[in-house]
Amino acid sequence: MKLSEIKVGDKASIRKTVTEGDVYTYAGITGDQNPMHVDKLYGEASQFGSRIAHGMFTAGYVSAVLGMKLPGPGCIYMSQEMRFVAPVRFGDTIDTVCEVIEVIPEKKRVVLSTTCTNQDGKDVLVGKAMMYVPE
Amino acid sequence: MKLSEIKVGDKASIRKTVTEGDVYTYAGITGDQNPMHVDKLYGEASQFGSRIAHGMFTAGYVSAVLGMKLPGPGCIYMSQEMRFVAPVRFGDTIDTVCEVIEVIPEKKRVVLSTTCTNQDGKDVLVGKAMMYVPE
Amino acid sequence: MKLSEIKVGDKASIRKTVTEGDVYTYAGITGDQNPMHVDKLYGEASQFGSRIAHGMFTAGYVSAVLGMKLPGPGCIYMSQEMRFVAPVRFGDTIDTVCEVIEVIPEKKRVVLSTTCTNQDGKDVLVGKAMMYVPE
Amino acid sequence: MKLSEIKVGDKASIRKTVTEGDVYTYAGITGDQNPMHVDKLYGEASQFGSRIAHGMFTAGYVSAVLGMKLPGPGCIYMSQEMRFVAPVRFGDTIDTVCEVIEVIPEKKRVVLSTTCTNQDGKDVLVGKAMMYVPE
Repeated sequence: MKLSEIKVGDKASIRKTVTEGDVYTYAGITGDQNPMHVDKLYGEASQFGSRIAHGMFTAGYVSAVLGMKLPGPGCIYMSQEMRFVAPVRFGDTIDTVCEVIEVIPEKKRVVLSTTCTNQDGKDVLVGKAMMYVPE
Repeated sequence: MKLSEIKVGDKASIRKTVTEGDVYTYAGITGDQNPMHVDKLYGEASQFGSRIAHGMFTAGYVSAVLGMKLPGPGCIYMSQEMRFVAPVRFGDTIDTVCEVIEVIPEKKRVVLSTTCTNQDGKDVLVGKAMMYVPE
Repeated sequence: MKLSEIKVGDKASIRKTVTEGDVYTYAGITGDQNPMHVDKLYGEASQFGSRIAHGMFTAGYVSAVLGMKLPGPGCIYMSQEMRFVAPVRFGDTIDTVCEVIEVIPEKKRVVLSTTCTNQDGKDVLVGKAMMYVPE
Repeated sequence: MKLSEIKVGDKASIRKTVTEGDVYTYAGITGDQNPMHVDKLYGEASQFGSRIAHGMFTAGYVSAVLGMKLPGPGCIYMSQEMRFVAPVRFGDTIDTVCEVIEVIPEKKRVVLSTTCTNQDGKDVLVGKAMMYVPE
């Protein structure tokens, strides 16, 4: 989208179910083979009771909304801050919503809140992104 | 590692060469099929002159260092803030260094700087992570 | 590690849960599409009662311990002998332990026992590796 | 094949070109992210002058010949011994030949030599496999 088309309150989202295969593939390409993600016995003995997805894997859904939908292709991802507030388990369905909270025309920047929520309505990731949006 | 073993200045790193296959696989599992990453013509016509990796893919290397090495398995990734300051191209070799910059014993937390640098010594991602480290 | 730092009895390990996705991916990259690994009906009718992982896939965990941990990066894998002594099923969690059993300083070589054990404590792969370890 | 059909001198082979993607995928599923395989700068600075494939990845081709062709489906891979005698580089085409060198009817076992050779005729892996072949 163009900067002039974007206004505070605009929203976009994607929803996807996390699979064991996604998490293993992510562990493979990043090298993050933390046992919390790939060792069933370790996960079951942990405070979470099961293996969980990498927080940074879930963050990829935020990148997908920003890069594909709002503000979409042609924009540049400048920064992200986020807190991983609850675990994501294999099989969870994550709804990722990005909402414009500020438009800074003189700098061609847009700030969006970025929230990932699971099938029970519980937030798992909350944060804020800044995008550069060319005219 | 245990909290008592961690001190300001401790460092850990991994280095890996980004491949086209990594980026495509990441696009697949996250759904972030932004043409900047998977459309060669689009990338060549862009300000970067080529397809680039997702910033959030590079961030996965940060997760790998934190989760595998420092502070390593058993710790919980609480939050991350980061800026994507230069593009990562296919074939770039990224050195990811995490360094402890603060230990907060009463909250069992450790703050680390997180920096990804390419083969030319140029920073591509800079940020800060907070980890919860059980005793 | 350096040769001078390694002594008989040193151990390192990794533990990971084998997934159907791992086995299929391995079948894909090696071309070993033996029905025992990728045909559910065939596996169920076999003496094992289910599809199983390739023995040589499990052997990759041995390579991971040797190449990443003990003796780690910079060393050269010279040889391996191994017996596949029990099946590995999808969902099994495999603990792979390598232990130094001989150090041969004049040849800069280290011999390690290599053992993969499942979640029930049953050995699935037993063997011996020889590594070249530069000074 | 049935045991009675197998005789000393029988041979089978497969040939495949190793790709960067194969090696990265293998690093991912096994967790063996040794920099010799996934860090271009590290490989270039090494004695090999480039990244190389995991020796144990190449060994997967042996498993493919044994499991798919000779003695083929229905047989059980009992043991393997092998030496990694030369590096395999990305883009190398590896010819893997297994040849029956002994048939032990009373134990229903067959021993095969297992040899992987690159496009220049240089052996990269040499070894010996023992297979259990039901009647």
